[in-house]
Amino acid sequence: MTPTPIAPSTARTYPSVNIAHKLSLLHEHWSQRVVAEMNDYQFKIAKLQGDFVWHSHADTDECFFVVAGELRIDLRDGAVTLRAGEMFVVPKGVEHKPFAQNEAHVLLVEPRGVINTGGEESERTRANDVWI
Amino acid sequence: MTPTPIAPSTARTYPSVNIAHKLSLLHEHWSQRVVAEMNDYQFKIAKLQGDFVWHSHADTDECFFVVAGELRIDLRDGAVTLRAGEMFVVPKGVEHKPFAQNEAHVLLVEPRGVINTGGEESERTRANDVWI
Repeated sequence: MTPTPIAPSTARTYPSVNIAHKLSLLHEHWSQRVVAEMNDYQFKIAKLQGDFVWHSHADTDECFFVVAGELRIDLRDGAVTLRAGEMFVVPKGVEHKPFAQNEAHVLLVEPRGVINTGGEESERTRANDVWI
Repeated sequence: MTPTPIAPSTARTYPSVNIAHKLSLLHEHWSQRVVAEMNDYQFKIAKLQGDFVWHSHADTDECFFVVAGELRIDLRDGAVTLRAGEMFVVPKGVEHKPFAQNEAHVLLVEPRGVINTGGEESERTRANDVWI
């Protein structure tokens, strides 16, 4: 009787999400691209340069994590400056305006469905559920 | 009449959260420290070295983002290897076991209240809501 062959290994190599690689695929400023989901939250990359619009998110906090470059987030009563490896959570309902003198690479974390310009539609408003 | 003095600027400099700095304050392997909150989610740092225990989280996905070093996450049917700047989301209910040959620095994102060893209490179980 032919011996049963040993089953081929089914060990799977799961892919990681490499943030720098994902950023290398994005060539547009202010657009966001989803790179991962966790429950009903999304991790999104963006390349920011120049001035964004003042806006707020009525229903959620929003996390900015800077991967490269420098990002200033203006708030109505001050500002925070983020460099690579630094993060800040803008509280729900707080008006903010991102600004980057030079291109900054950012990882955003927020619930699925959040619009980048918050409650205010503007020429900066972009599709909010596109994967890369 | 003395002119009214110009009000001192009230512009506030908000502090960023510097992940590498926070990690420099943590001297224990496998303990988690909260560095930021977003809605009911927490960002936690940890230094991992060696083998963790198999566990799963019945109610939530869990995000691992590697800041420095290399982390392997074993799953029952394979594994994912994460290097600095790479992330992976372990789906809800999926058994996993982190392993780091050398010390790896990690940023975790998960809902507030998640126990590091999931449903299984073990000698690796640590307090889960300590800020740094």
